[in-house]
Amino acid sequence: MDKIEQILSFIVEIEKLKDVHRKTRPVGLERYENSAEHSWHVCLTALMLKDHANEPVDIDRVIKMLLIHDLGEIDAGDTIIYQSETAGNKAAEAAGVARILGLLPDGKGNEYLTLWHEFEAGETADSRYARAIDRVPPLLHNLHSDGHSWRENRVPKEKVFALNARIGQGSQALWETIRARLEEAVDRGVLK
Amino acid sequence: MDKIEQILSFIVEIEKLKDVHRKTRPVGLERYENSAEHSWHVCLTALMLKDHANEPVDIDRVIKMLLIHDLGEIDAGDTIIYQSETAGNKAAEAAGVARILGLLPDGKGNEYLTLWHEFEAGETADSRYARAIDRVPPLLHNLHSDGHSWRENRVPKEKVFALNARIGQGSQALWETIRARLEEAVDRGVLK
Repeated sequence: MDKIEQILSFIVEIEKLKDVHRKTRPVGLERYENSAEHSWHVCLTALMLKDHANEPVDIDRVIKMLLIHDLGEIDAGDTIIYQSETAGNKAAEAAGVARILGLLPDGKGNEYLTLWHEFEAGETADSRYARAIDRVPPLLHNLHSDGHSWRENRVPKEKVFALNARIGQGSQALWETIRARLEEAVDRGVLK
Repeated sequence: MDKIEQILSFIVEIEKLKDVHRKTRPVGLERYENSAEHSWHVCLTALMLKDHANEPVDIDRVIKMLLIHDLGEIDAGDTIIYQSETAGNKAAEAAGVARILGLLPDGKGNEYLTLWHEFEAGETADSRYARAIDRVPPLLHNLHSDGHSWRENRVPKEKVFALNARIGQGSQALWETIRARLEEAVDRGVLK
């Protein structure tokens, strides 16, 4: 198969991310979000909030990280953040993303596999910011739907605050804004 | 409203793109594609095919163009390419994208509005390549579904070849690969 054909096969394969369903619903919609449209959404979220990152970030690397960050879910499925950070789930995602990027010619996928592992480790300024941004849209979904997904998955407020505090590692200013909204949701009885 | 709050409002507003339905179905799915997941898909398509562009491109600018290229559809709706390139439709999209980017603080949207107009004009290397890439996934959808959307919208082969030849302006090698597949579809009687 020639190189362009190989890349076209990759493009068709990653399309499966459009059928991986997440646990929250986009604001105003009755259906669940899929991981492909989520990936688009976090790229623009990262781009527009970049001046509020704690440390200087290379936004172009951040966007590439976010474009590929969920590819492993094609094989592993989506897991709600409040249950997902287990070794088994991470290993399944890592194997999935390696398989999919392996479809590209000339080992071109290796560069992106390294970027995916950097995102997962969250130990660089770019990945800390990217991981912070990844948390934002699902919180907005909950805040705009009286906590639909929190209720459906019985997520207590303690977990919501504890797991999302990592937003502050990427952008303290963003976390302060979000935390104020979460506290408002607690006051309204939407987050318990 | 403070700046971060303004950006969060923008992020919620652009979510409406997840409810703009296109005319083709992702490979393997029975539902129509939406413009948000399409936007993600073309970003990765552009990234992986960049070495096959006719001219050197700034892939980071191309990706930003593709992230925002359909925002105008939130107000204007999606129109099939075979009918969309009218002055009225373009004006409605331009007004829509200006309104949405206008939600951002400090006139930050202006930079992206300029980029959107560059994409629409298609007169630079980056925009020629981005516009070529934008055509690829819907063709793959048709090629993998026995021409589902061509049939449904009664698009004759002459129009398919004429309108997609612009892929060659961004990447001649890519157009040659795609054209061969389209000719195969004609031979199979799928494209008439």
